[in-house]
Amino acid sequence: MPDTSAEIVAVGSELLLGEHVDTNSAWISSRLAEVGVDVYRHTTVGDNVGRMVDALRQACGRARTVIVTGGLGPTADDLTRVAVARLANVELQRHAEIVAYLQEHFHRGGRQMPDSNLLQADIPAGARVLEPVGTAPGFAIDLDGSTVWCVPGVPREMTVMVARDIIPALQRLGAAAATVSRVVRTSGTAESAVDEACAAVTRRLEATGNPTLAFLASRGETRVRVTAKAADRDAALALLDPLVDELLELLGANVVGIDDEGVESAVARQLRRLAMTLAVAESITGGGVGARLVTVPGASDWFAGGLVTYATETKSRLADVDPSLLEAFGPVSQETAVALATSARARLEADVGLAVVGVAGPTTQGGQPVGLTWAAAALPDGSTPATSRRLPARSRSDVQEFAVSMALDFLRRQLAELS
Amino acid sequence: MPDTSAEIVAVGSELLLGEHVDTNSAWISSRLAEVGVDVYRHTTVGDNVGRMVDALRQACGRARTVIVTGGLGPTADDLTRVAVARLANVELQRHAEIVAYLQEHFHRGGRQMPDSNLLQADIPAGARVLEPVGTAPGFAIDLDGSTVWCVPGVPREMTVMVARDIIPALQRLGAAAATVSRVVRTSGTAESAVDEACAAVTRRLEATGNPTLAFLASRGETRVRVTAKAADRDAALALLDPLVDELLELLGANVVGIDDEGVESAVARQLRRLAMTLAVAESITGGGVGARLVTVPGASDWFAGGLVTYATETKSRLADVDPSLLEAFGPVSQETAVALATSARARLEADVGLAVVGVAGPTTQGGQPVGLTWAAAALPDGSTPATSRRLPARSRSDVQEFAVSMALDFLRRQLAELS
Repeated sequence: MPDTSAEIVAVGSELLLGEHVDTNSAWISSRLAEVGVDVYRHTTVGDNVGRMVDALRQACGRARTVIVTGGLGPTADDLTRVAVARLANVELQRHAEIVAYLQEHFHRGGRQMPDSNLLQADIPAGARVLEPVGTAPGFAIDLDGSTVWCVPGVPREMTVMVARDIIPALQRLGAAAATVSRVVRTSGTAESAVDEACAAVTRRLEATGNPTLAFLASRGETRVRVTAKAADRDAALALLDPLVDELLELLGANVVGIDDEGVESAVARQLRRLAMTLAVAESITGGGVGARLVTVPGASDWFAGGLVTYATETKSRLADVDPSLLEAFGPVSQETAVALATSARARLEADVGLAVVGVAGPTTQGGQPVGLTWAAAALPDGSTPATSRRLPARSRSDVQEFAVSMALDFLRRQLAELS
Repeated sequence: MPDTSAEIVAVGSELLLGEHVDTNSAWISSRLAEVGVDVYRHTTVGDNVGRMVDALRQACGRARTVIVTGGLGPTADDLTRVAVARLANVELQRHAEIVAYLQEHFHRGGRQMPDSNLLQADIPAGARVLEPVGTAPGFAIDLDGSTVWCVPGVPREMTVMVARDIIPALQRLGAAAATVSRVVRTSGTAESAVDEACAAVTRRLEATGNPTLAFLASRGETRVRVTAKAADRDAALALLDPLVDELLELLGANVVGIDDEGVESAVARQLRRLAMTLAVAESITGGGVGARLVTVPGASDWFAGGLVTYATETKSRLADVDPSLLEAFGPVSQETAVALATSARARLEADVGLAVVGVAGPTTQGGQPVGLTWAAAALPDGSTPATSRRLPARSRSDVQEFAVSMALDFLRRQLAELS
């Protein structure tokens, strides 16, 4: 007997060829989570009736709700209608009102309807039609205690049908509860160290199973996600709020923000707190630090701008770095980073300067290895702290993205100590 | 008995919650297609040993090759090792050489290894270890005629292992035929216009079914992808080469590059052809134009650097824009863009200057609507062409990314006309 969970089946050979990334399953899953429906499996199959029937039969054996996306178009390789009819052991029936809708749809667009679109009016007998958004109607059919919902693969059509037809139906079924997640984001520390800092919380939550906790690492950040199920969104948030506070306490200075807030938001918050402005000087990142900062709304309140001193001679020309210093220490050095931070602060008349230099690769630079990166700050008290790291040297753009995160995390930690 | 096809199993509750989109399965699938391995199913399961074992057992029942991505991290919810050991009915064995590797990895980064990372040295007995890229080793194990390959979920680690270990192994198995795609990328024109320009090719290819052609639109680019199946990669490329040439001819000045080459590569190619250097002045994009340019290897040959004149007063302070001009026309205007391009060119002693100004949102700026963007160039002959567009105003970072693409496409078209 199927449980109350849902599964999603994405249909399309282009997905199995890797030509398209399936974004529909994630979108549908997050909508289902919001109304408390658990999704335990995503399956992707190609445009093949036999394999579609197999996948749908298995999904119906496990889940009460199966949502199929894709394969409802007008072409010969759109086979979801055929597969569902075969699984249900019913015929396809042509719906006159869908034919009329399609003819009107094409007429409005000033075009003649190709005969192939008539296929879109064929629906498995006994299924309920979901009104089309473009040309493809969806449908829903009950099979041995499961309901199979079929919606188009085109995202703007799929999203309308899921929101309009499927979510309200699941809510009427009395979906158990809401599932809500919050995320505490850390930077500048290893995933395993974050894990260890949270070990006591992890053990406590494992004992109850709700809320749950997970760790996600990417682009120099480790995120701690807590997820709660409760009767509704507010009740779930009430479970999560004290947990988020506890994590903030445990993770201390490693926290950059909550939910959507990246390290750039933490920098913005610190600068607003201090009522200070920032200027940057970038070499390895070519402008990436500034680009990340200006994604924060209202950045012009605290971000003055910067110098992109990419070519070595530009460091002298634009940022007054003494050529003999460049000669002595090289462009990728603490001395150069400090000189650039100081110059950015002075040239842009900002309170704080931040500089980042490094070797992006693919080749070493002046004997310095790929990935070596220095960040330096010029602070209002005249101090010029600096830090270096050898970033993992994968691709050039990887090193550059890491360098942006490293520089911003360094600055965030410096600013946190100012008052 | 499993056939010669492959299946991909992505592991991670964050995928089922819709918090992450699974891009790994598509990437792996396209690599498998290139060596002629058919992928008939993708499955996504959460961090749950029972459901992982079920999904893996089913996949092994259908496919000779099963590739698992994710669940190899150092935390308690990384369970792929445990699930595979249970499926194979073997113990986990701690590998001393992996422990040594991990200790060295952390030591090099100047950090102490947390104990939890030791879990990553536990591999199901009888499995072959795949050398780690970050901290997570992969492994491969043979089960009843199928091989299960386990690789990390972190894309930059996964991609290395698939290319280094899995693809060569599958090629040694004697995969049947190759499917190869090439992509012609256009910028600055509508998808429907690209579609129309290729109409004759589309009709011709539809008659034969091999190669095939598809259009993909994203982030201000339209890509035309042609895909051929043939006995091997070279034979497939031989089918594609004349087709790519034909598309380049049909799409003319709208083409920015082929395959991995974005508009930044086209700009780099033009600057190398002209033996010219470039300086930028950026406002709305905060450094994003420079950041995109420096992803091209060897950028220091032609990219001098730039001015990030984000705050309005910085436009005068750093780039000598006449305050009365700013007062008269506003920071988002053709006049300001031209003044910034001219100043960047002069200040950095470059051959060409490029500037971009605009309104990123969320609110209008001096009566100018969100999305309004001006790009201007300062060319060696003294001319200062400019262009404006009202970019689709979705999120702030969307507008900023579009503005980077728009400025670079404008520059590419200007440079193409120089000699």
